[in-house]
Amino acid sequence: MKARVTVTLKAGVLDPQGKAIEGALKSLGVDGIASVRQGKVFDIELDGDKTKAEAALKAAADKLLANTVIENYRVEVLG
Amino acid sequence: MKARVTVTLKAGVLDPQGKAIEGALKSLGVDGIASVRQGKVFDIELDGDKTKAEAALKAAADKLLANTVIENYRVEVLG
Repeated sequence: MKARVTVTLKAGVLDPQGKAIEGALKSLGVDGIASVRQGKVFDIELDGDKTKAEAALKAAADKLLANTVIENYRVEVLG
Repeated sequence: MKARVTVTLKAGVLDPQGKAIEGALKSLGVDGIASVRQGKVFDIELDGDKTKAEAALKAAADKLLANTVIENYRVEVLG
């Protein structure tokens, strides 16, 4: 079974990396970019049924993949 | 206008970070994880119309956000 966990910064949390990318894109001549915020995506393959997979993914995100103080995560089981 | 660029490693490219996460999840007692591959996601706000936005996002990904030798990217204009 394939799944994807997407981890993004919570609103209001400063993203210096995103700011640096904004600046770099401007200097590379890419116009019209108002803001950039960077996150992480994890493509995960799991065994077992969907319910077990969702529980394992939630545990993985809570324990390791996301810092839940400053990050949100979204789990998608793709089947 | 909001858009998302998702950057992932091409198939066959070794992902040591993903391997490390697999090991860490096992030691944290998260079962059933067969493989993990990590990528990046960029949430971008842009001005202008959809066509201009897609062109700017493609230029941004080609020039900076993705290393197109080892990475694929997907552009989604969310509206």
